Amino acid sequence: MFKYSYLLALLQITSLHFFAQDSSMIRKIYDEALLRGRAYEDLRSLCKDIGPRLSGSSEAEMAVRWSESKMKAYGFDTVYLQPIMVPHWERGNPETAWLSTPTTTPYKLNIKALGGSISTNGILEGEVIMFDHLDDLKKSTRSVVEGKIVFLNQPMNAAEIQTFKAYGACYPIRGNGAVEAAKLGAKAVIIRSLALPLDDHPHTGSMRYEDSIPKIPAAALSTLDCEYLARALQADSKAMITLEMDCRVFPDAPSFNVIAEIKGRKQPKEIITFGGHLDSWDQGEGAHDDGAGVIHCMEALRILKTLEYQPVHTLRVVFFMNEENGNMGGKTYAKWVKEQGEKHIAALESDRGGFTPRGFGCDGNPKVFERFSSYKNLFDSYDLHVWEKGGGGVDIGPLKNEFKDITLFGFIPDSQRYFDVHHAASDVFENVNKRELELGAAAVTSLIYLLDKDLFR
Amino acid sequence: MFKYSYLLALLQITSLHFFAQDSSMIRKIYDEALLRGRAYEDLRSLCKDIGPRLSGSSEAEMAVRWSESKMKAYGFDTVYLQPIMVPHWERGNPETAWLSTPTTTPYKLNIKALGGSISTNGILEGEVIMFDHLDDLKKSTRSVVEGKIVFLNQPMNAAEIQTFKAYGACYPIRGNGAVEAAKLGAKAVIIRSLALPLDDHPHTGSMRYEDSIPKIPAAALSTLDCEYLARALQADSKAMITLEMDCRVFPDAPSFNVIAEIKGRKQPKEIITFGGHLDSWDQGEGAHDDGAGVIHCMEALRILKTLEYQPVHTLRVVFFMNEENGNMGGKTYAKWVKEQGEKHIAALESDRGGFTPRGFGCDGNPKVFERFSSYKNLFDSYDLHVWEKGGGGVDIGPLKNEFKDITLFGFIPDSQRYFDVHHAASDVFENVNKRELELGAAAVTSLIYLLDKDLFR
Repeated sequence: MFKYSYLLALLQITSLHFFAQDSSMIRKIYDEALLRGRAYEDLRSLCKDIGPRLSGSSEAEMAVRWSESKMKAYGFDTVYLQPIMVPHWERGNPETAWLSTPTTTPYKLNIKALGGSISTNGILEGEVIMFDHLDDLKKSTRSVVEGKIVFLNQPMNAAEIQTFKAYGACYPIRGNGAVEAAKLGAKAVIIRSLALPLDDHPHTGSMRYEDSIPKIPAAALSTLDCEYLARALQADSKAMITLEMDCRVFPDAPSFNVIAEIKGRKQPKEIITFGGHLDSWDQGEGAHDDGAGVIHCMEALRILKTLEYQPVHTLRVVFFMNEENGNMGGKTYAKWVKEQGEKHIAALESDRGGFTPRGFGCDGNPKVFERFSSYKNLFDSYDLHVWEKGGGGVDIGPLKNEFKDITLFGFIPDSQRYFDVHHAASDVFENVNKRELELGAAAVTSLIYLLDKDLFR
Repeated sequence: MFKYSYLLALLQITSLHFFAQDSSMIRKIYDEALLRGRAYEDLRSLCKDIGPRLSGSSEAEMAVRWSESKMKAYGFDTVYLQPIMVPHWERGNPETAWLSTPTTTPYKLNIKALGGSISTNGILEGEVIMFDHLDDLKKSTRSVVEGKIVFLNQPMNAAEIQTFKAYGACYPIRGNGAVEAAKLGAKAVIIRSLALPLDDHPHTGSMRYEDSIPKIPAAALSTLDCEYLARALQADSKAMITLEMDCRVFPDAPSFNVIAEIKGRKQPKEIITFGGHLDSWDQGEGAHDDGAGVIHCMEALRILKTLEYQPVHTLRVVFFMNEENGNMGGKTYAKWVKEQGEKHIAALESDRGGFTPRGFGCDGNPKVFERFSSYKNLFDSYDLHVWEKGGGGVDIGPLKNEFKDITLFGFIPDSQRYFDVHHAASDVFENVNKRELELGAAAVTSLIYLLDKDLFR
């Protein structure tokens, strides 16, 4: 009993020492981010000087050069480009849809082709058949669906507190809607935008085809127009949609992941990677998705350098290319680092927007997770209360295949406003709040510091 | 040892039972708020159909009628107006300021009179003297300040994570700036807006005079113009400001608190009050301050009624009038309920905006606080992690003088964006997010439910 108390006291003293030292460093990190931060101005430049940057586009290339130049200017130890090949799809022009019924005047619909959709090859016209859920379409029959335009009006569940859960539940209408509709002979598919507000923005995003199933055009409709269309169909089941989209696929294009490092003092061959994706959809400015994420990570490296922190391991920022429609950046990076014989001990991704921080997720072994959880106390006064199991992201996910002992982390900001702007024309710099962005950068920096100095020492 | 385990197990079972029943009610509350909520549309109407509503203004009266009519339409047990007298100040027109130096062209400054300021009586002109902190002004001398316009350029500290702390630290420049400047013979005082972003919005707010000190005009300057003015003064210390403000004080005006109730089933004479303030400053639309707060509370009563909850105590919503410049609503209410012989057991205020919820504060005895803290577990999946000591608000504060055993609660949303819009033209409906507002209403409703059913049973 005595021994146990003694041990406990020792542990507490050690822990207090740990807290005092690291509390002071974390306070410095937050001061740098909030008082002398570069995140907001860097994001402004990425959004306004370049704008949207879909893989294969001229803007994506410009963003690569912008990032390389920025990171060189910050004076990191090494800045380099990792060549990759990416898909190159363009939505083209025209991109229009309108609704007509025997009894009403024609009504223009706010649509955007889903990323990867084929063209309509001129004007495509069809009767509309609505399903409230993808499962209802799957249960339907060819006689009901054949030759029609399928309208998947499955809404995100607003009652879900975590909006990513509601998104996940609806994701199949975007990913598989075209395949399921084509199986029953549909001409085209129009999905309800994966978004929570009722507004006029169509929200695009990736979709897929299967080789054995005919390819049909696929588009997203704004939520307000979904409501309108549903009412129109209730009033008159003979509603027709006229759709024209000139989407094109070009040969795969050369592109790059952009990489910058500060070399480890003790374990330079052990890498901690943190990043987001530089590419975005071709609407808005990719401000939250994922301009905020790459800026969080670049700012983290800048802050640690500015504070003259000497990392134990090599700290590496990666701006991944092509997360949105192929993930060639993430896949190529994981294989490449394995081939290089580098040891990757941890990776963190920020790809949930630049909103007020809530915490982090950790996908690691129980010992690592326990230590990670203990950091919570350090961040009480910074409002970081989520220290949960699981985490990672699309870009860093492939590292898990190559390094079975790697621990993945995900930054978790508040999710309430994310699906207002996700993949839509409203994902612009003006919808990012300066302090929320800076607090995200400070949170990411602080965790990277703790991973390097403490968790994987 | 055995007995202890047994007790513990019993406690856990009881606690689990409590959790299961209340979890289910809280889930219903959130569903109602998020799926069938009225908060967003009600706030839109208050902001757009009425707009800003400073005490004594025609809009404030309109807001009283609007609130009475809304609450009657929701069918609460009783809806009534409590007469009060309020100050009536108007900023008038013109309201202009410009800067001139011997070497530069005149520059128009974005200013707004502080609430309660006297007029300049025509054009007032003076040399400017800048202080970086109110304490520097206090340490200065009459020979330095006399006959000049004092410019208090004390910024809010962006390094404070809780923005209300940074606000509190700067509040004296607004509240006491005129008195301190006049003590040394200044002609007028211009303060840096109590705001975090660098932009063009002046942020108004209350200020005070002292009977024994000469009254001088007081205005707030936008943060960007403060930076400009500071640079101009550095370049040329002979900078002059020309100021014209036509503020007027009218006789106190009759107005009302708006009150609605659902009567308690078991303890109708024991009251739980929850509210915010209906008045706002005369810029913007008072959307966050405090449109969101009154709407949270009205929505809470509506949700509990809709779910057919039968309260133990009387649940009373109060829309207080005149929080911004006098607090006559709060003061009159507290005295009145005491005179009525009503027993007030608890009061909650929402006056920190309609942002994503973080939790609640509680100013109560240790036993009450302990029980309150135990609710945290019920709200883990709703992201309500702040269950802290202290809380209340300006409107409900006076109740503490009349009922020493009363427990006060404050709703705590995320504070990061609050001082972007506080008391400025940017505090408009468009800057309130639907989900964030609805989640706030659900959180307030849930706590009121627990207070009634559990904490004060």
